[in-house]
Amino acid sequence: MQRRSFLKKAALGAAAGGATLAAPAFAQESPAISWRLASSFPRSADAIYSGGENVAKYVSEATGGKFQIRAFPGGEILPALGVLDGVQNGTVECGHTASYYYFGKDPALCFDGAVPFGLNTRQYNAWVRHAGGLQVLRELFAKFNIVNFPCGYTGTQMGGWFRKEVKTVDDLKGLKFRTAAFAGAVLMKLGVVPQQIAGGDIYPSLEKGTIDAAEWIGPYDDEKLGFHRVAPFYYFPGWWEGTLQVSLYVNKDKYEALPKHYQAVLDQASALATNTMIATYDAENPNALKRLIAEGAKLRAFPKPVMDACYKAAQETYAELSAKDAGFKKIHDAYMGFRDHEIPWFRIAEGSFDQYMASAAK
Amino acid sequence: MQRRSFLKKAALGAAAGGATLAAPAFAQESPAISWRLASSFPRSADAIYSGGENVAKYVSEATGGKFQIRAFPGGEILPALGVLDGVQNGTVECGHTASYYYFGKDPALCFDGAVPFGLNTRQYNAWVRHAGGLQVLRELFAKFNIVNFPCGYTGTQMGGWFRKEVKTVDDLKGLKFRTAAFAGAVLMKLGVVPQQIAGGDIYPSLEKGTIDAAEWIGPYDDEKLGFHRVAPFYYFPGWWEGTLQVSLYVNKDKYEALPKHYQAVLDQASALATNTMIATYDAENPNALKRLIAEGAKLRAFPKPVMDACYKAAQETYAELSAKDAGFKKIHDAYMGFRDHEIPWFRIAEGSFDQYMASAAK
Repeated sequence: MQRRSFLKKAALGAAAGGATLAAPAFAQESPAISWRLASSFPRSADAIYSGGENVAKYVSEATGGKFQIRAFPGGEILPALGVLDGVQNGTVECGHTASYYYFGKDPALCFDGAVPFGLNTRQYNAWVRHAGGLQVLRELFAKFNIVNFPCGYTGTQMGGWFRKEVKTVDDLKGLKFRTAAFAGAVLMKLGVVPQQIAGGDIYPSLEKGTIDAAEWIGPYDDEKLGFHRVAPFYYFPGWWEGTLQVSLYVNKDKYEALPKHYQAVLDQASALATNTMIATYDAENPNALKRLIAEGAKLRAFPKPVMDACYKAAQETYAELSAKDAGFKKIHDAYMGFRDHEIPWFRIAEGSFDQYMASAAK
Repeated sequence: MQRRSFLKKAALGAAAGGATLAAPAFAQESPAISWRLASSFPRSADAIYSGGENVAKYVSEATGGKFQIRAFPGGEILPALGVLDGVQNGTVECGHTASYYYFGKDPALCFDGAVPFGLNTRQYNAWVRHAGGLQVLRELFAKFNIVNFPCGYTGTQMGGWFRKEVKTVDDLKGLKFRTAAFAGAVLMKLGVVPQQIAGGDIYPSLEKGTIDAAEWIGPYDDEKLGFHRVAPFYYFPGWWEGTLQVSLYVNKDKYEALPKHYQAVLDQASALATNTMIATYDAENPNALKRLIAEGAKLRAFPKPVMDACYKAAQETYAELSAKDAGFKKIHDAYMGFRDHEIPWFRIAEGSFDQYMASAAK
């Protein structure tokens, strides 16, 4: 053990208190630590919110209760969209959030969460776990004094709820659409008027007609907010979120002060929380979609010309952001290079199997 | 701490030796433990073999080196296909294997690995982590004195290497095809003569014409064995492996004697090893496929009538096995019920996004 590391651990043990008296040898190597985790998500969005709660639970279980993390829903100890700031400045030790919320700080942060026409879940996992993606993202987050961990996926999201059908590209003109910032920037090129509205305010805005359409996540979360009752046309796919990679943010100083095995536990607990979250979405979305359709939701695919126009607008947006920001361009090129490496392969074994099963099974 | 559990832990600590003298309080709660893991896989199949090595590495990292597992390749301390027996009878504490190798012991074990026209990777994860699949499988494995953990996926495998093209269902008649047991049982109905040949013997058999075709895993592993040089037609998809779920087997007595936090670490380490393995396959397969094609591999999709005939034969096989074995039927019905729950949903957001990307991106 290096002296500096030992001193840090001793200080942590002393700060945590108590355990050092009962079991000095153990406390020294596995100090009692108590952290707070600020989530960006409401408790009601339980599949995504529980990603943070599960990390806390798994970390406690893997350390015999020595490393405790208490999770708080969005807005309780930090504003829902204030998680990056709060972790960066050490108000909380860690947070659970979606990196595209911070598009305004640095649009490159979106590559940690979701970008238009980006990676799907399997491809994201491959990029971060085997193809250098995590290293690229960690370099970016180091500027914010944060160590990031992939901590959940939603799968491909839905395209949202529309009061009227979208039959042509022209139907997008003047459409007041609640969506995330990056998708909004792309859609503005097609005449959409993007709206930033907190989750709880979407329903009344749709009902009153203040907005024409809104996207949230997918059937399991959308159902709880009741959008289908006021905007029945349910479009797919949400091309701005081929998946959402949800992240655990850890304050870099706090992370580096942890014993090495607690650092490892954070990574492994996040991996299990990742698999639990995508499992929840994949298992629960079909049930929710059936209920929504029974209650009047009308499923619609975005027409191909609309998809093509959005794809073109996304390429223009990427080119503009890359032209004015070398940092953005670097991550963009790595991310899109990996996407273009993956897609031809995914067409073959995986794609043909899935398509056959879609036609053959009940 | 319960007395019985305390005594077990004390016994383990004593057996492991040493650490008890240096740090009694720590050793009591986090005893030094040393296990052996027998893999079914050769070291050369590094993506799948490293699933076992990674679990060992991650467990050590999460316990500060207190819980050590040493991994051995297939055939080194146990026969490659002797892992279930070895873990069951305690020859080794744990193993890393594919459950369909044990079709002969109980065909229901295949539902832990892969079955014809079964779940894909996302659906498997959803079944085991959220929809009761792990509980169903653990009940089955309890009969073998084993606690099983999902520990890796390969993704949809390829359909294998054929010396001649398969253009019609009739081309399957008399075809000597090296494949796994369950797929072999299905293909026999179409006149295929299935062959059980160990990985290292496939190439010479194909070269000499002793067999007409062989499937192994996918581009990344197949490339190393050089099949493309003697059987150039590379078919997809491997409908008998929509994915392979690889498993960590732990001897139940050894598992129950572990401190609770070591049990949790095994689960979390397996989750990270799972994500690392599928990442490796997803990132490396495209590179390998490009090299194989450059060296003369000819990519072919199984014709739709061939897929349909195989699908029908698989349904007959399931019906026969279910009719004579209530245990098989119970797991079959749970597994296929979940598959049929998932597929209609996967067609929508996820499927339409993937298909659009396959057509739009480079």
